[in-house]
Amino acid sequence: MPTTVSKTIYSTPQEAEQAFYDAFHKGDLETMMSVWADDDDIYCIHPGGPRIAGLENVRQSWMKLFTNNQSLSFQLHSQHVFQGPMLAVHSVYEQITVLGQGPVRSAILATNMYVRTERGWRMAVHHASPAPNAPSPATENTTKESKTLH
Amino acid sequence: MPTTVSKTIYSTPQEAEQAFYDAFHKGDLETMMSVWADDDDIYCIHPGGPRIAGLENVRQSWMKLFTNNQSLSFQLHSQHVFQGPMLAVHSVYEQITVLGQGPVRSAILATNMYVRTERGWRMAVHHASPAPNAPSPATENTTKESKTLH
Repeated sequence: MPTTVSKTIYSTPQEAEQAFYDAFHKGDLETMMSVWADDDDIYCIHPGGPRIAGLENVRQSWMKLFTNNQSLSFQLHSQHVFQGPMLAVHSVYEQITVLGQGPVRSAILATNMYVRTERGWRMAVHHASPAPNAPSPATENTTKESKTLH
Repeated sequence: MPTTVSKTIYSTPQEAEQAFYDAFHKGDLETMMSVWADDDDIYCIHPGGPRIAGLENVRQSWMKLFTNNQSLSFQLHSQHVFQGPMLAVHSVYEQITVLGQGPVRSAILATNMYVRTERGWRMAVHHASPAPNAPSPATENTTKESKTLH
Protein backbone atom coordinates (compact mmCIF):
# COMPACT_ATOMS: atom_id res chain seq x y z
CA MET A 1 0.00 0.00 0.00
CA PRO A 2 1.52 3.34 -0.97
CA THR A 3 2.20 5.78 1.84
CA THR A 4 2.40 9.54 1.66
CA VAL A 5 5.76 10.88 2.69
CA SER A 6 6.19 14.57 3.32
CA LYS A 7 9.77 15.62 3.73
CA THR A 8 11.63 18.88 3.75
CA ILE A 9 13.36 19.82 0.51
CA TYR A 10 16.95 20.94 1.04
CA SER A 11 17.88 23.22 -1.81
CA THR A 12 21.63 23.14 -1.10
CA PRO A 13 24.07 20.67 0.50
CA GLN A 14 24.65 23.36 3.14
CA GLU A 15 20.98 23.30 4.17
CA ALA A 16 21.04 19.51 4.37
CA GLU A 17 24.20 19.68 6.48
CA GLN A 18 22.65 22.15 8.90
CA ALA A 19 19.57 19.93 9.27
CA PHE A 20 21.83 16.91 9.84
CA TYR A 21 23.66 18.50 12.76
CA ASP A 22 20.46 20.02 14.19
CA ALA A 23 18.81 16.58 14.13
CA PHE A 24 21.95 15.01 15.65
CA HIS A 25 21.94 17.60 18.45
CA LYS A 26 18.21 17.12 19.16
CA GLY A 27 18.17 13.35 18.74
CA ASP A 28 15.39 13.85 16.20
CA LEU A 29 15.21 10.64 14.15
CA GLU A 30 12.59 11.79 11.65
CA THR A 31 14.48 14.96 10.75
CA MET A 32 17.71 12.96 10.61
CA MET A 33 16.18 10.54 8.13
CA SER A 34 14.69 13.41 6.09
CA VAL A 35 18.29 14.45 5.41
CA TRP A 36 19.38 11.05 4.06
CA ALA A 37 18.64 9.95 0.50
CA ASP A 38 15.96 7.26 0.20
CA ASP A 39 18.44 4.87 -1.29
CA ASP A 40 20.00 1.57 -0.39
CA ASP A 41 23.38 2.86 -1.57
CA ILE A 42 23.74 5.31 1.31
CA TYR A 43 26.23 4.50 4.02
CA CYS A 44 27.23 5.76 7.43
CA ILE A 45 30.45 5.18 9.39
CA HIS A 46 30.24 6.18 13.05
CA PRO A 47 33.64 6.77 14.74
CA GLY A 48 35.49 3.44 15.02
CA GLY A 49 32.52 1.54 13.63
CA PRO A 50 31.92 -0.52 10.51
CA ARG A 51 30.32 0.77 7.32
CA ILE A 52 26.56 0.65 7.78
CA ALA A 53 24.91 0.48 4.37
CA GLY A 54 21.33 0.88 3.23
CA LEU A 55 18.42 3.01 4.37
CA GLU A 56 17.01 0.69 7.00
CA ASN A 57 20.40 -0.10 8.58
CA VAL A 58 21.31 3.59 8.69
CA ARG A 59 17.97 4.40 10.33
CA GLN A 60 18.49 1.67 12.93
CA SER A 61 21.97 2.99 13.74
CA TRP A 62 20.67 6.50 14.45
CA MET A 63 17.72 5.13 16.43
CA LYS A 64 20.14 3.20 18.63
CA LEU A 65 22.36 6.27 19.07
CA PHE A 66 19.44 8.51 19.96
CA THR A 67 17.99 6.14 22.57
CA ASN A 68 21.06 6.88 24.72
CA ASN A 69 19.30 10.16 25.47
CA GLN A 70 22.56 12.06 25.61
CA SER A 71 22.27 15.67 24.62
CA LEU A 72 25.19 16.52 22.38
CA SER A 73 26.34 19.96 21.46
CA PHE A 74 28.23 20.43 18.20
CA GLN A 75 30.69 23.09 17.27
CA LEU A 76 31.72 22.83 13.65
CA HIS A 77 35.07 24.11 12.48
CA SER A 78 37.15 24.41 9.34
CA GLN A 79 34.56 23.31 6.80
CA HIS A 80 36.00 22.37 3.43
CA VAL A 81 33.72 22.02 0.40
CA PHE A 82 33.91 20.35 -3.01
CA GLN A 83 30.80 21.19 -5.02
CA GLY A 84 29.87 19.39 -8.22
CA PRO A 85 26.61 19.48 -10.18
CA MET A 86 25.31 16.18 -8.75
CA LEU A 87 27.56 15.43 -5.79
CA ALA A 88 29.01 17.60 -3.05
CA VAL A 89 31.60 16.56 -0.49
CA HIS A 90 32.07 18.46 2.76
CA SER A 91 34.77 17.88 5.34
CA VAL A 92 34.23 19.30 8.79
CA TYR A 93 35.72 19.11 12.26
CA GLU A 94 33.04 18.35 14.86
CA GLN A 95 33.87 19.44 18.40
CA ILE A 96 31.35 17.47 20.44
CA THR A 97 30.39 18.25 24.02
CA VAL A 98 28.12 15.92 26.01
CA LEU A 99 25.86 18.36 27.84
CA GLY A 100 25.82 17.92 31.61
CA GLN A 101 29.22 16.23 31.62
CA GLY A 102 31.42 19.27 32.08
CA PRO A 103 34.15 20.32 29.72
CA VAL A 104 34.84 16.91 28.11
CA ARG A 105 35.07 17.28 24.36
CA SER A 106 35.69 14.90 21.51
CA ALA A 107 37.15 15.96 18.21
CA ILE A 108 35.76 14.16 15.19
CA LEU A 109 36.57 14.54 11.52
CA ALA A 110 33.65 13.95 9.19
CA THR A 111 33.46 13.57 5.45
CA ASN A 112 29.87 14.17 4.37
CA MET A 113 28.70 13.51 0.84
CA TYR A 114 25.45 14.88 -0.59
CA VAL A 115 23.67 13.92 -3.80
CA ARG A 116 21.24 16.01 -5.82
CA THR A 117 17.97 14.10 -6.09
CA GLU A 118 14.57 14.92 -7.53
CA ARG A 119 13.64 15.97 -4.02
CA GLY A 120 16.57 18.24 -3.26
CA TRP A 121 20.03 17.61 -1.85
CA ARG A 122 20.31 14.63 0.45
CA MET A 123 23.09 13.02 2.43
CA ALA A 124 24.45 9.80 0.95
CA VAL A 125 27.66 9.34 2.98
CA HIS A 126 28.69 10.23 6.53
CA HIS A 127 32.18 9.01 7.42
CA ALA A 128 33.19 10.13 10.92
CA SER A 129 36.40 9.23 12.74
CA PRO A 130 38.27 10.41 15.83
CA ALA A 131 40.63 13.31 15.20
CA PRO A 132 43.55 14.42 17.36
CA ASN A 133 42.24 17.96 17.60
CA ALA A 134 40.71 20.72 15.54
CA PRO A 135 43.19 22.87 13.67
CA SER A 136 43.70 26.44 14.68
CA PRO A 137 43.15 29.04 11.97
CA ALA A 138 46.94 29.50 11.95
CA THR A 139 47.62 25.88 10.93
CA GLU A 140 44.92 25.37 8.36
CA ASN A 141 43.31 28.24 6.56
CA THR A 142 40.30 26.47 5.08
CA THR A 143 37.36 27.83 7.04
CA LYS A 144 34.34 28.04 4.75
CA GLU A 145 36.48 27.35 1.73
CA SER A 146 34.54 26.39 -1.35
CA LYS A 147 35.54 24.90 -4.65
CA THR A 148 33.03 24.78 -7.43
CA LEU A 149 33.50 22.26 -10.19
CA HIS A 150 31.71 22.86 -13.42
CA MET B 1 60.74 29.32 -14.52
CA PRO B 2 58.14 26.93 -15.94
CA THR B 3 58.77 23.24 -15.48
CA THR B 4 57.60 20.40 -17.66
CA VAL B 5 55.49 17.89 -15.81
CA SER B 6 54.74 14.58 -17.40
CA LYS B 7 52.12 12.61 -15.56
CA THR B 8 49.95 9.65 -16.26
CA ILE B 9 46.39 10.40 -17.35
CA TYR B 10 43.84 8.32 -15.45
CA SER B 11 40.75 8.04 -17.61
CA THR B 12 38.50 6.71 -14.82
CA PRO B 13 38.38 7.05 -11.02
CA GLN B 14 38.95 3.29 -10.93
CA GLU B 15 42.31 3.65 -12.74
CA ALA B 16 43.33 6.41 -10.35
CA GLU B 17 42.35 4.23 -7.40
CA GLN B 18 44.40 1.32 -8.65
CA ALA B 19 47.44 3.57 -9.13
CA PHE B 20 46.91 4.98 -5.62
CA TYR B 21 47.05 1.56 -3.95
CA ASP B 22 49.91 0.38 -6.18
CA ALA B 23 51.94 3.46 -5.21
CA PHE B 24 51.01 2.97 -1.54
CA HIS B 25 52.16 -0.67 -1.71
CA LYS B 26 55.44 0.23 -3.44
CA GLY B 27 56.16 3.37 -1.44
CA ASP B 28 56.44 5.20 -4.76
CA LEU B 29 56.06 8.91 -3.99
CA GLU B 30 56.09 10.17 -7.57
CA THR B 31 53.35 7.80 -8.69
CA MET B 32 51.40 8.57 -5.52
CA MET B 33 51.54 12.29 -6.29
CA SER B 34 50.60 11.67 -9.95
CA VAL B 35 47.29 10.38 -8.61
CA TRP B 36 46.50 13.49 -6.56
CA ALA B 37 45.02 16.62 -8.14
CA ASP B 38 47.48 19.54 -8.40
CA ASP B 39 45.34 21.64 -6.16
CA ASP B 40 45.61 23.25 -2.77
CA ASP B 41 42.06 22.09 -1.95
CA ILE B 42 43.01 18.43 -1.75
CA TYR B 43 43.14 16.81 1.65
CA CYS B 44 44.27 13.57 3.24
CA ILE B 45 43.32 12.03 6.59
CA HIS B 46 45.57 9.16 7.68
CA PRO B 47 44.02 6.86 10.32
CA GLY B 48 43.68 8.77 13.60
CA GLY B 49 45.44 11.81 12.17
CA PRO B 50 44.42 15.38 11.45
CA ARG B 51 43.23 16.68 8.10
CA ILE B 52 46.27 17.45 5.98
CA ALA B 53 45.33 20.01 3.36
CA GLY B 54 47.12 21.28 0.28
CA LEU B 55 49.42 19.71 -2.27
CA GLU B 56 52.72 20.31 -0.49
CA ASN B 57 51.46 19.11 2.91
CA VAL B 58 49.92 16.01 1.35
CA ARG B 59 53.21 15.25 -0.44
CA GLN B 60 55.16 15.68 2.81
CA SER B 61 52.81 13.30 4.64
CA TRP B 62 53.33 10.52 2.08
CA MET B 63 57.07 11.13 1.98
CA LYS B 64 57.18 10.71 5.76
CA LEU B 65 55.10 7.54 5.58
CA PHE B 66 57.23 6.03 2.82
CA THR B 67 60.54 6.68 4.61
CA ASN B 68 59.46 4.06 7.18
CA ASN B 69 60.42 1.55 4.51
CA GLN B 70 57.66 -0.83 5.52
CA SER B 71 56.33 -2.93 2.72
CA LEU B 72 52.58 -3.01 2.97
CA SER B 73 50.27 -5.40 1.21
CA PHE B 74 46.70 -4.30 0.52
CA GLN B 75 43.64 -6.42 0.06
CA LEU B 76 40.65 -4.32 -0.92
CA HIS B 77 37.13 -5.46 -0.12
CA SER B 78 33.56 -4.34 -0.52
CA GLN B 79 34.09 -1.35 -2.77
CA HIS B 80 31.13 0.99 -2.95
CA VAL B 81 30.95 3.64 -5.71
CA PHE B 82 29.06 6.89 -6.27
CA GLN B 83 29.82 8.22 -9.74
CA GLY B 84 28.89 11.73 -10.85
CA PRO B 85 29.99 13.63 -13.96
CA MET B 86 32.69 15.64 -12.14
CA LEU B 87 33.14 13.89 -8.80
CA ALA B 88 33.30 10.26 -7.80
CA VAL B 89 33.31 8.87 -4.28
CA HIS B 90 34.58 5.38 -3.49
CA SER B 91 34.40 3.61 -0.16
CA VAL B 92 36.62 0.63 0.37
CA TYR B 93 37.81 -1.66 3.14
CA GLU B 94 41.61 -1.94 3.17
CA GLN B 95 42.98 -5.06 4.80
CA ILE B 96 46.63 -4.13 5.36
CA THR B 97 49.40 -6.61 6.06
CA VAL B 98 52.89 -5.43 6.96
CA LEU B 99 55.11 -7.80 4.99
CA GLY B 100 57.63 -9.68 7.09
CA GLN B 101 55.59 -9.27 10.26
CA GLY B 102 53.50 -12.44 10.09
CA PRO B 103 49.75 -12.53 10.03
CA VAL B 104 49.09 -9.16 11.71
CA ARG B 105 46.45 -7.28 9.79
CA SER B 106 44.80 -3.92 10.19
CA ALA B 107 41.36 -3.12 8.85
CA ILE B 108 40.91 0.40 7.54
CA LEU B 109 37.88 2.07 6.02
CA ALA B 110 38.67 4.63 3.35
CA THR B 111 36.51 7.18 1.61
CA ASN B 112 38.29 8.28 -1.58
CA MET B 113 37.04 11.15 -3.67
CA TYR B 114 38.13 11.79 -7.25
CA VAL B 115 37.63 14.86 -9.40
CA ARG B 116 37.58 15.07 -13.18
CA THR B 117 40.27 17.51 -14.28
CA GLU B 118 41.61 18.60 -17.65
CA ARG B 119 44.28 15.95 -17.12
CA GLY B 120 42.04 13.04 -16.22
CA TRP B 121 40.59 11.81 -12.95
CA ARG B 122 42.61 12.66 -9.88
CA MET B 123 42.26 12.02 -6.17
CA ALA B 124 41.13 15.01 -4.13
CA VAL B 125 40.22 13.35 -0.81
CA HIS B 126 41.51 10.31 1.07
CA HIS B 127 39.85 9.83 4.47
CA ALA B 128 41.05 6.65 6.18
CA SER B 129 40.12 5.45 9.65
CA PRO B 130 40.44 2.25 11.68
CA ALA B 131 37.58 -0.21 11.15
CA PRO B 132 36.54 -3.05 13.46
CA ASN B 133 36.78 -5.59 10.63
CA ALA B 134 35.85 -6.09 7.01
CA PRO B 135 32.30 -7.27 6.40
CA SER B 136 31.69 -10.74 5.09
CA PRO B 137 29.71 -11.00 1.86
CA ALA B 138 26.83 -12.30 3.97
CA THR B 139 26.54 -9.12 6.03
CA GLU B 140 27.04 -6.51 3.35
CA ASN B 141 26.39 -7.23 -0.26
CA THR B 142 28.08 -4.24 -1.82
CA THR B 143 31.13 -5.69 -3.54
CA LYS B 144 31.80 -3.72 -6.70
CA GLU B 145 28.46 -1.98 -6.46
CA SER B 146 28.17 1.10 -8.61
CA LYS B 147 25.67 3.91 -8.71
CA THR B 148 25.76 6.30 -11.61
CA LEU B 149 24.29 9.74 -11.11
CA HIS B 150 23.38 11.69 -14.18
